[in-house]
Amino acid sequence: MQASARNRFAGTISAVREGAINSEIELTTPGGDVIVAVVTQTSAQRLGLAVGKEAIALIKAPWVMVLTDEGGIKLSARNRMAGTVSRLIKGAVNSDVVIALPGGSAVHAVVTNDAVAELGLKEGVAATALFKASHVILGVSA
Amino acid sequence: MQASARNRFAGTISAVREGAINSEIELTTPGGDVIVAVVTQTSAQRLGLAVGKEAIALIKAPWVMVLTDEGGIKLSARNRMAGTVSRLIKGAVNSDVVIALPGGSAVHAVVTNDAVAELGLKEGVAATALFKASHVILGVSA
Amino acid sequence: MQASARNRFAGTISAVREGAINSEIELTTPGGDVIVAVVTQTSAQRLGLAVGKEAIALIKAPWVMVLTDEGGIKLSARNRMAGTVSRLIKGAVNSDVVIALPGGSAVHAVVTNDAVAELGLKEGVAATALFKASHVILGVSA
Repeated sequence: MQASARNRFAGTISAVREGAINSEIELTTPGGDVIVAVVTQTSAQRLGLAVGKEAIALIKAPWVMVLTDEGGIKLSARNRMAGTVSRLIKGAVNSDVVIALPGGSAVHAVVTNDAVAELGLKEGVAATALFKASHVILGVSA
Repeated sequence: MQASARNRFAGTISAVREGAINSEIELTTPGGDVIVAVVTQTSAQRLGLAVGKEAIALIKAPWVMVLTDEGGIKLSARNRMAGTVSRLIKGAVNSDVVIALPGGSAVHAVVTNDAVAELGLKEGVAATALFKASHVILGVSA
Repeated sequence: MQASARNRFAGTISAVREGAINSEIELTTPGGDVIVAVVTQTSAQRLGLAVGKEAIALIKAPWVMVLTDEGGIKLSARNRMAGTVSRLIKGAVNSDVVIALPGGSAVHAVVTNDAVAELGLKEGVAATALFKASHVILGVSA
């Protein structure tokens, strides 16, 4: 598969919770990270999502928020990955921020330049990527 | 209506499934394309969404993922539209990719330049636009 | 907390509706604006979201759509804020649009330049920011 999504994580489905419209799926990566996705129940059935099945999680870079300090706040977003900024490409409006994770992978986020300035984002700075479960697309072998 | 969303599709509601919090709505375009949206049940009621009603679907360009090869992977995203790249405007970080569809309409996606390079996106290349049901905003006549 | 999200609104939770997978939360700001968020029920429990609790809503700028004329259309997106464009920074592909709200706060949206041209967005123009409940991240004091 060739997809534009900058973030792709492979793992094994470790939990499935079904609702009337949406299902919540947990994917555990080989490194032990847990990614939570909310997909429609129709998709969950069509893809045969079940505990033990291998799957990938795709997340577009603009769907990722960057935090440098959680300072006493708990956020509702289910997915977070902490690392260090390893690359920053600045455009006129947005910047592409890459956060290297301890396990060797990386997360891409597209944030506004205002945010880059306000958070002092640059190579070497500790940062956390945050994204909602409803922003994750899951894939399985056809 | 004047809205910034680059993608707008008109059609007739062909299915409604209600849950406790969210409702899943299917819109069928005159060309036979089916667009699936997840909106809150409160919105579905406020808009009077029901089978047979005319509606529009709005999708912002950054919510659209681009695929050039699905290579043996099934993805959870409910909406996909296959066509040919007809325009590509490149910024410092992002590119605006327009995919012309067989029926004469087009889909806009904003993807990172890294994705453009990796997928070899350029005019004339076959590409598929993919977006989640939860990223679709529906509209009806007031 | 230091977060990249350009939009942050503080308020008090005024309603909670629980579903099997998702919960719908209403936040009322001191100025009387109501922001609706859909988060997973697991998040709602983990954060202890309940009526009367103080919370913040975070929304990334690319998740915000801009309208200049609602012209007889009702849209499903639960959140809308009307104001006046107070700043516009144009890149090669996207523009960062700031809409000043009557109460003194502002909403940021990232939209394509095509949209800026089509809607005639510039300083002083009346505009409405629109975003889906499923695109709001909630936060509470830890």
